[in-house]
Amino acid sequence: MTGDKKILLGHGSGGKLSHELIKDIFFHHFQNPILAQFGDSAIVELPGNLQVQNSGCGILTPHSAIRNPHSGIKLAFTTDSFVVKPLFFPGGDIGRLAISGTVNDLAVMGARPLFLSTAFILEEGLEMSLLERVVSSMKETAVEAGVIISTGDTKVVEKGSADGLYINTAGIGVVEDSLCISPDRIKTGDKILLSGTLGDHGVAILAARKELPEVGAYCNTPLLSDCAPLGGMIQEALGACKDIRFMRDPTRGGLATTLNEVANGRDFGILLFEESIPVREGVSAACELLGLDPMYLANEGKVVIVCPEADAGRVLDVLRRHPLGKDSAIIGEVVKGPAGRVFMKTLVGGTRVIDMPASDPLPRIC
Amino acid sequence: MTGDKKILLGHGSGGKLSHELIKDIFFHHFQNPILAQFGDSAIVELPGNLQVQNSGCGILTPHSAIRNPHSGIKLAFTTDSFVVKPLFFPGGDIGRLAISGTVNDLAVMGARPLFLSTAFILEEGLEMSLLERVVSSMKETAVEAGVIISTGDTKVVEKGSADGLYINTAGIGVVEDSLCISPDRIKTGDKILLSGTLGDHGVAILAARKELPEVGAYCNTPLLSDCAPLGGMIQEALGACKDIRFMRDPTRGGLATTLNEVANGRDFGILLFEESIPVREGVSAACELLGLDPMYLANEGKVVIVCPEADAGRVLDVLRRHPLGKDSAIIGEVVKGPAGRVFMKTLVGGTRVIDMPASDPLPRIC
Repeated sequence: MTGDKKILLGHGSGGKLSHELIKDIFFHHFQNPILAQFGDSAIVELPGNLQVQNSGCGILTPHSAIRNPHSGIKLAFTTDSFVVKPLFFPGGDIGRLAISGTVNDLAVMGARPLFLSTAFILEEGLEMSLLERVVSSMKETAVEAGVIISTGDTKVVEKGSADGLYINTAGIGVVEDSLCISPDRIKTGDKILLSGTLGDHGVAILAARKELPEVGAYCNTPLLSDCAPLGGMIQEALGACKDIRFMRDPTRGGLATTLNEVANGRDFGILLFEESIPVREGVSAACELLGLDPMYLANEGKVVIVCPEADAGRVLDVLRRHPLGKDSAIIGEVVKGPAGRVFMKTLVGGTRVIDMPASDPLPRIC
Repeated sequence: MTGDKKILLGHGSGGKLSHELIKDIFFHHFQNPILAQFGDSAIVELPGNLQVQNSGCGILTPHSAIRNPHSGIKLAFTTDSFVVKPLFFPGGDIGRLAISGTVNDLAVMGARPLFLSTAFILEEGLEMSLLERVVSSMKETAVEAGVIISTGDTKVVEKGSADGLYINTAGIGVVEDSLCISPDRIKTGDKILLSGTLGDHGVAILAARKELPEVGAYCNTPLLSDCAPLGGMIQEALGACKDIRFMRDPTRGGLATTLNEVANGRDFGILLFEESIPVREGVSAACELLGLDPMYLANEGKVVIVCPEADAGRVLDVLRRHPLGKDSAIIGEVVKGPAGRVFMKTLVGGTRVIDMPASDPLPRIC
């Protein structure tokens, strides 16, 4: 079935190629109702209750499970590997990214992030002092996020078999029983909120790669990654509205990919208002210079929230009061149609379809 | 503190260099009572009970934790990255290894393995059909182990920035409340059991690397890796003896490293009987040929169990009845001294100190 196909950089980009790979290879073999949720974290229930639900809040327990008197606990469980290049960039580093990414994947499922694992693949010859800087940044970020690094692993490969270091983090959080964060709960009329400016991480990485030599001339503010753990802010948003339908952090593939994942195959459309979408001046300038679109750039400290219209103002207030959410905005709404599509009312008054990209324009962004 | 030191292959070997790296960098920064247990999995307790214990069965919950009515559940949580070379070897492949390794790390903590994550770092240009073979092997092994692959991630790096593919698996299991598997519970007089022959995995990898051209002449049986998920067998052993003191799978660094980790700094010694330690004819021949010692070779389908003398016979019977444990043996005992050391009564009647190796003789064994 896979013929003579080979892995391309685009297969790791979060766009259409990534989705094909996941569907054709991983889901094809591993298929089970938990994976089929396609969430940022899996929601698993501890043994005792063996029922399998395939709904939006699907849970699954192994058939071999023992009966457990404490059954019914919902855990969020997630993993991410980090291969960002370079290892240090304005506003962050691979260590801060590795903690934030996994914390955020737990948080957007409504979970309170608790425990993280960290696994390192190190290239022979890596400076120990560089590793120590990364590890120290991970510790700081873990403290900021209120999570405990509980277990770890280290492997070393020969010089030339990795690019400095790669980090994997997996995480566990507990989901409050009453919460159900799922795109299946989204309804026409719901509002779409974004917790701040788009594209900061993607442009910071480009700047760190020296692919933006002249951008200083276009803006006065430094281009910093937004890389940050969002668990605290998201818990506050949930405090303001228990009925939040859906959340996700728009990382690889950007906001465009996240919203297409939400809308595709569903009976509603998503309408965005370009004028409401916050983008920093420097990011706009860099995007114009390089022909990039902030809608497709990676973010590492932002969350998209879909909530009922009646609660949107309250959630927005809570986000804006948080230091990580002061540029939050209501950027769009859920509409009847065209179903399955994302589109945007542009500044000049037109309507533009926001499609899923074939692949991210920037490899190794996280 | 780290000066100009660089990462060496030996830092990933499981021996003394690995321990230094973990102590000086990872523990130094991440320090917390869970990591300090140095177990194959972390044992974490879900929120609700905020006490911190530093004993052998130490548990820790985050200070930010919410009160949870289902508190007191003990989870085992572990992670491992796999960089084995080559990707396919007699008796297994990187996929079978990645599932088995994490299942075994959960099982030796007394946990029932439940949920696994899988994260792939793929090298650009990797044949999709090769990836599919690996994924299919992971699925088969997960079914064999009774675990559910619940969440995953894929990254792609440029050609030359990885060696085919690397896999990380993290895992969650539930630990029965009454169990406490810890080297702190080991007492003088306890017996040491091994669930089968030593060194099979290490020698199979050497054979696959064509570093054993003549070994066929030395034995009639094929050299196969023992790579297998041990959750089922270990649960049966726990069924036969709830009082098992300690278990571990002797992977990188082999049995010698595992037992040194147990004995070092404690007030007992470990005495092994060479004549009782099962080693396959082909593995012996290969070791003689290459000047290797099976005590230091990696195993990927064996468990070392320390249990009270009175239960040793019953545990041995259970292990031997299991297909993965038919060569099990009682290989030694816990003695008063010399405290902190591992030594072996040799076949020729002498006594040999079994030290921790500086590093594994074979890099990228798992």
